[in-house]
Amino acid sequence: MRGQLGVSSIVPVILCGGSGTRLWPLSRADRPKPFLPLIGAQSLLEETLARVAAKPGFSAPVIVAGEVHRASVQRMLGDHKDARLIVEPEAKNTAPAIALAAQLANADDVLLVCPSDHHIERTEAFLDAVAAAASLARDGWLVSLGIVPDRPETGYGYLQRGKPLDGGFETARFVEKPALDQAQGFLADGNYLWNAGIFAFSAGHFLAELAASRPDMADRVSRAMDGADREGACIRPAAAPFSGIRAESVDYAVMEGTGRAALVEADIGWSDIGDWRALHGARRAGEGDADGNVVRGRADLVDCRNVMAESDGPRISVVGLDNIVVIANGDEVLVTSAEHAQKVGLLPGAQGR
Amino acid sequence: MRGQLGVSSIVPVILCGGSGTRLWPLSRADRPKPFLPLIGAQSLLEETLARVAAKPGFSAPVIVAGEVHRASVQRMLGDHKDARLIVEPEAKNTAPAIALAAQLANADDVLLVCPSDHHIERTEAFLDAVAAAASLARDGWLVSLGIVPDRPETGYGYLQRGKPLDGGFETARFVEKPALDQAQGFLADGNYLWNAGIFAFSAGHFLAELAASRPDMADRVSRAMDGADREGACIRPAAAPFSGIRAESVDYAVMEGTGRAALVEADIGWSDIGDWRALHGARRAGEGDADGNVVRGRADLVDCRNVMAESDGPRISVVGLDNIVVIANGDEVLVTSAEHAQKVGLLPGAQGR
Repeated sequence: MRGQLGVSSIVPVILCGGSGTRLWPLSRADRPKPFLPLIGAQSLLEETLARVAAKPGFSAPVIVAGEVHRASVQRMLGDHKDARLIVEPEAKNTAPAIALAAQLANADDVLLVCPSDHHIERTEAFLDAVAAAASLARDGWLVSLGIVPDRPETGYGYLQRGKPLDGGFETARFVEKPALDQAQGFLADGNYLWNAGIFAFSAGHFLAELAASRPDMADRVSRAMDGADREGACIRPAAAPFSGIRAESVDYAVMEGTGRAALVEADIGWSDIGDWRALHGARRAGEGDADGNVVRGRADLVDCRNVMAESDGPRISVVGLDNIVVIANGDEVLVTSAEHAQKVGLLPGAQGR
Repeated sequence: MRGQLGVSSIVPVILCGGSGTRLWPLSRADRPKPFLPLIGAQSLLEETLARVAAKPGFSAPVIVAGEVHRASVQRMLGDHKDARLIVEPEAKNTAPAIALAAQLANADDVLLVCPSDHHIERTEAFLDAVAAAASLARDGWLVSLGIVPDRPETGYGYLQRGKPLDGGFETARFVEKPALDQAQGFLADGNYLWNAGIFAFSAGHFLAELAASRPDMADRVSRAMDGADREGACIRPAAAPFSGIRAESVDYAVMEGTGRAALVEADIGWSDIGDWRALHGARRAGEGDADGNVVRGRADLVDCRNVMAESDGPRISVVGLDNIVVIANGDEVLVTSAEHAQKVGLLPGAQGR
């Protein structure tokens, strides 16, 4: 498990969960975001795996997913024969999921926690940020990647920069999703970064912090892994101790309470592809025409700008529109303005009705 | 064939032709506009027939259509057992079509020429205008219904009001489809009306004018009807003389050249349903909700205004849009802004590609 030159390994921990509705009807309950080839030909999970695969200093990844997604994950592990898969008995948010993975690692391994459904345009810049984060993590810091914001986003939490460290900063404060005027203030201030849910910390420090802040969770995770059922690369923690855990995010359970929170600034072309507008933005870079239109499947556009159209069957024809998204998928047709894309989750269809 | 009290009959002549592309994909080559239930439950042809059926002073209608539409017309004649159908050997525009029908009528019958794919909201006002037009027609005038305009439309020809007559006006001038600034001038002027392609004239006066202005056409139509094949209510003029006719509209061949052109003003809620915007406007009156949205088939709208959605299969979901049209029909999905609806005909799909 050791990396080169006696430096501890970086173990990617890829969290594969959730069931967002904001990319409905492409994303559905049985086919969630990580498994869709949203940008380019690879799924976001495959992209996430490729980003950290076979890099010097990195160990094989650990994926944490629910039983409902196990088969999908295994299909996408193709080239990652040494990956391990922890099948969570049930979804308990991110803190217990990370704790399960930490139990698999050596105490001085650096866990690089990555969501499985984010897009990162600049892999080299990402790896540079990870190197800086890993270095701080080896010094005992619990590090968040802080995404340099380019807009007053109200959908993310923020990290406030504190005292400078070698390659990063202390995290002065974690801020909940702000109101718009607050977000505008953060952007103007320049000391606030988006909390992207990407973390680096040593397994040992993480588990020690968790034991201090959430002793019951730490104990139950430990017992679940002690009783785990292992079959090849697939690890199934014991359900009984795990089911008693109170679901909690790693931000609440560990990061916001520790005295050792740090951040590394990352200007890496990050997107959580949180809605159709975000996906359109990410696709436009690689697949867009001169008018910002992006088409997948059969579609004809006349007098359109910044239109995203995607069909898995019928032909889509769009005339005279700007900044809209048209999706034909199965027996559903979605048309939304970019501005209102976050409301897609309110649709009966998105709610499975 | 005589009407009551010695007054000549009004014979509705319903022209059933054309193959517009601007209501694609609902309207297609094999399923054109007259046969679609665009407004309410009836097709526009059925609506047109119902408007003139069993009214005092009206004779049974004569429908002129091509062989390609014969079966569709016959299906829709249901309650109009006494209607006659002239099957044109080929399409030659409106002047020869009307001339065929005129050959069927008595010389002093008033022909009321109506397109089969227009919508009229106020039937009583229409019938009042027709009564005035018929009265002028009996005095030897060739009468156009002049629609009172409510916008500077550039898609129609205009009629300029001349000297007053009893119940109408002489037509001072026929104006081709104008440029926008010209149309704005017409609207401001108040003396210009839309030429809706609805005419009233006596069969005898019409044929006399045609013989004077287009003797070859008049002669060929006469020979085609002399050699017609009659089978029940279905009349098939002889193809040979008819095929030599130069296609021409009644406006060019007769109306613009006669010294006896008159008009009757008609404020009747008329629409030629010339594009999706026009259809949306016509539907909104009867089927719209408080936000101007009109839905047919399965559709969910969130934060929408003035959206028309129609599906024959898949569910349509629309979020945060204003003034757009979404049509799912067969294997086609159309999304257009109301403003650009006239460009639908430019789409590959609308052109059968």
